[in-house]
Amino acid sequence: MEPGPPGASRPAEPGPRLHGECGADQAVSACLLYGAGAGAEAEAEPQRHALAVAAVLPAGGSGERMGVPTPKQFCPILGRPLISYTLQALERVCWIKDIVVAVTGENMEVMKGIIRRYHHKRISLVEAGVTRHRSIFNGLKALAQDQPDSKLSRPEVVIIHDAVRPFVEEDVLFKVAAAAKEHGAAGAVRPLVSTVISPSPDGCLDHSLERARHRASEMPQAFLYDVIYAAYQQCSDYDLEFGTECLQLALKYCHVKAKLVEGSPDLWKVTYKRDLYAAESIIKERISQQICVVMDTKEDEEHVGHHLEEMLKNELNHLKVTSVSLCHAGRDLQQVLSERCYSFVCVNVMTSEFEETQKLLNILKESNLSILYPVVVISVHFLDYKSVPVDQKMENLMRIRDLAKEAKKRNILLCGLLIYYPQDKQKLQESVRQGATIITTFIKERNSGFIGQLLVA
Amino acid sequence: MEPGPPGASRPAEPGPRLHGECGADQAVSACLLYGAGAGAEAEAEPQRHALAVAAVLPAGGSGERMGVPTPKQFCPILGRPLISYTLQALERVCWIKDIVVAVTGENMEVMKGIIRRYHHKRISLVEAGVTRHRSIFNGLKALAQDQPDSKLSRPEVVIIHDAVRPFVEEDVLFKVAAAAKEHGAAGAVRPLVSTVISPSPDGCLDHSLERARHRASEMPQAFLYDVIYAAYQQCSDYDLEFGTECLQLALKYCHVKAKLVEGSPDLWKVTYKRDLYAAESIIKERISQQICVVMDTKEDEEHVGHHLEEMLKNELNHLKVTSVSLCHAGRDLQQVLSERCYSFVCVNVMTSEFEETQKLLNILKESNLSILYPVVVISVHFLDYKSVPVDQKMENLMRIRDLAKEAKKRNILLCGLLIYYPQDKQKLQESVRQGATIITTFIKERNSGFIGQLLVA
Repeated sequence: MEPGPPGASRPAEPGPRLHGECGADQAVSACLLYGAGAGAEAEAEPQRHALAVAAVLPAGGSGERMGVPTPKQFCPILGRPLISYTLQALERVCWIKDIVVAVTGENMEVMKGIIRRYHHKRISLVEAGVTRHRSIFNGLKALAQDQPDSKLSRPEVVIIHDAVRPFVEEDVLFKVAAAAKEHGAAGAVRPLVSTVISPSPDGCLDHSLERARHRASEMPQAFLYDVIYAAYQQCSDYDLEFGTECLQLALKYCHVKAKLVEGSPDLWKVTYKRDLYAAESIIKERISQQICVVMDTKEDEEHVGHHLEEMLKNELNHLKVTSVSLCHAGRDLQQVLSERCYSFVCVNVMTSEFEETQKLLNILKESNLSILYPVVVISVHFLDYKSVPVDQKMENLMRIRDLAKEAKKRNILLCGLLIYYPQDKQKLQESVRQGATIITTFIKERNSGFIGQLLVA
Repeated sequence: MEPGPPGASRPAEPGPRLHGECGADQAVSACLLYGAGAGAEAEAEPQRHALAVAAVLPAGGSGERMGVPTPKQFCPILGRPLISYTLQALERVCWIKDIVVAVTGENMEVMKGIIRRYHHKRISLVEAGVTRHRSIFNGLKALAQDQPDSKLSRPEVVIIHDAVRPFVEEDVLFKVAAAAKEHGAAGAVRPLVSTVISPSPDGCLDHSLERARHRASEMPQAFLYDVIYAAYQQCSDYDLEFGTECLQLALKYCHVKAKLVEGSPDLWKVTYKRDLYAAESIIKERISQQICVVMDTKEDEEHVGHHLEEMLKNELNHLKVTSVSLCHAGRDLQQVLSERCYSFVCVNVMTSEFEETQKLLNILKESNLSILYPVVVISVHFLDYKSVPVDQKMENLMRIRDLAKEAKKRNILLCGLLIYYPQDKQKLQESVRQGATIITTFIKERNSGFIGQLLVA
């Protein structure tokens, strides 16, 4: 068993919809989330921290359905392996005390590397079995107190989740854990998307099942540890090889009828290559919800930087646009960083060339913000024919290429944007609007192919 | 009922994996596709054109699961509504004689607009019913010969498909149609992704179904027309309201046991917003498989344009890179256009500025290639300090913005790429390699946010 690296500095937590925080506002968010049941949930809230919960993540699969050589849990999304997103979703839930991941021997080093690189915590590794059930069983064994070399403690409730369901919310984790404590077992379910049919031996339709009376069994599931461990200890070799459903094992061997919890569409499993595409798009969308405009002056309300900011706010009214200055040792910016903003527009008006951008890059590098997600910085400049000759300005600005190369090493994607600044108000409006389009495109695509470019609006 | 516009000029057919063609090479592709069954399939081949087949597409859904106001079949993918992709997949199959689409009254004009704009053919529109089954029934009624105002003919076999499954292949359409002719009914099935469970009335697990003994029922399905029409005529109001499965209706009312045909993962249904993301990524990937390099000279094998071409071939060895010149009235290019290539790199070396690019844009505009998909053109230029002064060159090249604005109106996405051309061989190599990265990024993203930019490598 391989514990994760201790004491590594934790990167900032990811975007608002990806993440909750452990803390005082949890009861409030629970009330909001649960609607009608809010009263009961608010009462249940103090229990979260009292529950002794561990999670087991079987991650030994080969991903043959994906049609790619890399097992799907290790496929990169924005450069980071899928399983890291799932771990992130579990470890932000502070009442999950331990997370046991089962990986094959050949992927053990890869997994250790992932834990180190992305600063994952509370993770222990065990060797996967040849089937999913054997992997889960290995994970459960590691949590049993009778293991002499284990530093893990036997939990009251154990959550079982898939490495390839990265979008699981704390909400549903809590619901299955609480239901498991009450009923002995619980699992998330979803309505069926397709009708399920039963074929006859000759490959024809025998009958189709009534859709409303069946459910798709999803993950997470949760169990009283003693129930699921006992089930696996009694489990036949046949079930360990061919069974797919933990809830069924609890029923068959321990006569525990699992409570079914309706889950959200977010619980979906990354199964095919198209699911990787979908996951990447979802993650890109989530980390692009907030844009921070860094301005090198706050005094002159008339200047074009504020105009750009207003335009961004108008054009992107579905996004949150905040603005800060880097004065006062960047304290405003620290606030934004703590809100998990991954997109920055740095307006250089008053200062020469890249002074402001360079300051921002330095703060970002120190913040570790870009460990989990690529951070985008657009360095905005204005082309005012009155001041500097065009070609000199252009030549100065080509320094963006070296800055970008340097920033890329820290997972920061930098490009430049030169906004034409004519006297004509309407033309200026047009320039600024095009600048806003370029900014949003670069933020949404978050593609390293265009870093170091000086785009022109 | 609204027939599609007659005689509209058909745009070029889409990318290789999206499309088959009706023609001589079909038997060959069938042999390749079917593997072991090739002999039987090759014999079956002549039957395709003899089969009188129509298709019915219920498209009256409201898309509530998507969480967006637009019904999902009308959601845009690369600017074109999802249903247009599905129609395209059906109408390229020439043995499907008629395609009847059921849409709600309020979307009738939208649908007519789609048919006109994307030059769809062999489409008839009928009004959708309030449920999926009633919509299908309306489509079937339109195909009955006893309709006085119908120009459609009663088919022998009718295929029922979903408007939101755009990736259906001719292969599976033929398999279900042929199986329907033999068995009376047939439907595509897929293995279950999740275990299906049956809940007890108290919301607990009653039992879980054995995954290997069940299948997910997908689309397309096909029926002898007389069978499915008779089934709907006898169908109870309850089944018309709440039934989901046409195969089940054929079984219940006509005692026809449908043949089940194993389908590919491509049959998946666009259900959630994430599926739209996935569909867009798949389509982008498919239309970016081939790059055509247009060169303004073929003589000088040493020049840097050929170097770029070689580099593209090496860097993108998973893509097909062809090269043509625009001499001889662009006959080579016509060949490439007929192969459905949607990505062009136009190298301007010998000619001044945009001469070659302008020629290419003119040919593309005439070809109608960009009606179905956004076409990408990257206008490549080399910055050789020896010839023209830098700032003059740059200024000339800024014309790219106006060209791009013009091209955008025709769904052609144009950007410029200026490749630095130093004497040093290694530096040149580096420039060209970066150029190749920028080219592939622009082609893959296919995003209009960066059109008109002059990117620098």
